[in-house]
Amino acid sequence: MKLLRYGPIGKEKPAMLDAEGQVRDLSDHTADFAGATVSRDALARLAAIDPTTLPVVENPGRIGSCLASVPNFFCIGLNYTQHAIETGMDAPKEPIIFSKASSALSGPFDPVILPRGATKGDWEVELGVVIGREALYVSEDDALDYVAGYCTINDVSERAFQTERGGQWIKGKSAPTFGPVGPHLVTADEVPDPQDLRVSLDLNGTTVQDSSTSDMIFTVREIISYMSNMMRLQPGDIIATGTPSGVGMGMKPQRFLAPGDVMELEVDGLGRQRQVVESA
Amino acid sequence: MKLLRYGPIGKEKPAMLDAEGQVRDLSDHTADFAGATVSRDALARLAAIDPTTLPVVENPGRIGSCLASVPNFFCIGLNYTQHAIETGMDAPKEPIIFSKASSALSGPFDPVILPRGATKGDWEVELGVVIGREALYVSEDDALDYVAGYCTINDVSERAFQTERGGQWIKGKSAPTFGPVGPHLVTADEVPDPQDLRVSLDLNGTTVQDSSTSDMIFTVREIISYMSNMMRLQPGDIIATGTPSGVGMGMKPQRFLAPGDVMELEVDGLGRQRQVVESA
Repeated sequence: MKLLRYGPIGKEKPAMLDAEGQVRDLSDHTADFAGATVSRDALARLAAIDPTTLPVVENPGRIGSCLASVPNFFCIGLNYTQHAIETGMDAPKEPIIFSKASSALSGPFDPVILPRGATKGDWEVELGVVIGREALYVSEDDALDYVAGYCTINDVSERAFQTERGGQWIKGKSAPTFGPVGPHLVTADEVPDPQDLRVSLDLNGTTVQDSSTSDMIFTVREIISYMSNMMRLQPGDIIATGTPSGVGMGMKPQRFLAPGDVMELEVDGLGRQRQVVESA
Repeated sequence: MKLLRYGPIGKEKPAMLDAEGQVRDLSDHTADFAGATVSRDALARLAAIDPTTLPVVENPGRIGSCLASVPNFFCIGLNYTQHAIETGMDAPKEPIIFSKASSALSGPFDPVILPRGATKGDWEVELGVVIGREALYVSEDDALDYVAGYCTINDVSERAFQTERGGQWIKGKSAPTFGPVGPHLVTADEVPDPQDLRVSLDLNGTTVQDSSTSDMIFTVREIISYMSNMMRLQPGDIIATGTPSGVGMGMKPQRFLAPGDVMELEVDGLGRQRQVVESA
């Protein structure tokens, strides 16, 4: 299934795309998509519904984040070798874990608003993994059984907040609108190999990031297993799995976001995002 | 008000302490304590109730975390000068921010379970601040108007995961049971000065941490204002405001947690916690 949420901010309704690409409302079948309602069991119940029995939404309007809220918005740092090199940091020997404030969650087409005092706004297209079962001490072999689905994420960052303000990275990752997620939560059954997806981002029409999840240093399996040895992952948790090279801080000269810039980004099969940059 | 939650794990009910220290059930007046239900507006509605009209709970049994869940479990690092010195790190020029996984949330009397592979479990008594209103770009003068209340927190840590596994600190802060919170959420009106509270922790009956929130490098006002310039704080967010000196990693020789150890900790007026250490 390709799940999505449509409607004004804070009033989105849950829906799915049918085989013809029409939006079909799921309000009668799930309260929303967040936490337990995206558990693998809950999604299996939705998958049993005949889509043709669901009301067609002729004009869905705004598409929101494919999750209403997240128990945790985790991120993996420096998970592509060329990106680690462009930032001047060593490639990690173990996954680097940090988080965004959950209030950073944003719709895939909503403006990205640079916070007051921002000077180094930057983009990061990433494969997002949504957890579908409580995961604690999970093996790499079993790890993908704990995934609800996948989505496109822009891990928007303010590099001065992230690295020049005394730590830790969460400072530069958490502003409102810094977490566009969606448009689609694509259930795991439709993504046979999460390590074979193109990830790309265009800035003002020019492709600046273009890589494949096959280039990840730590795979989705490895990340989930690793994290589950340090914490209990919960249904609805997001893990943004790291960005490939081509971010603004890695350019020579560096190139940071300014109002009016347009970011368009996509992970193969998970849907395309587009954000216009504004200032707070 | 002193708010609390009683009952088995996952089935707690909301309650308050009355003037005689009796537990009074609030199930008819609030679904639980988490997110919007601990907004200042929601708490004002509870404060208008005559406690004598509420059912007395004769045998409340287990006392759970005073919050059912948290949108974010933020922490401030190295916020007491002597603690920064004992860790061998410089006192910060700006608040250090990191987070715990929200699944670390735990009851104040539940066992603390060291995760598999843990070798450097440690304790950290802290003043917890619970946010009661959305806070973005808030001044220091206004900051305390955004507080719902205060609580005792043990920011349990695994130092090897925190500092020897490639970053960031969230790795050592997030294991299940690493976030005992409560027993009481004491509403802000009952805490006239959050910078004048004794914070102390006994390990196996010996006092090892004993300080005052007056020794904080960054005050609660400063922390809230600072954070609100980088992210939107939400009702129900917790901020653990840092621990004073006397943690195990600062002792010579270092002294880390082992199964059977007993931690007893308290922030003045916010209630006492007690945890026995176990191994996963």
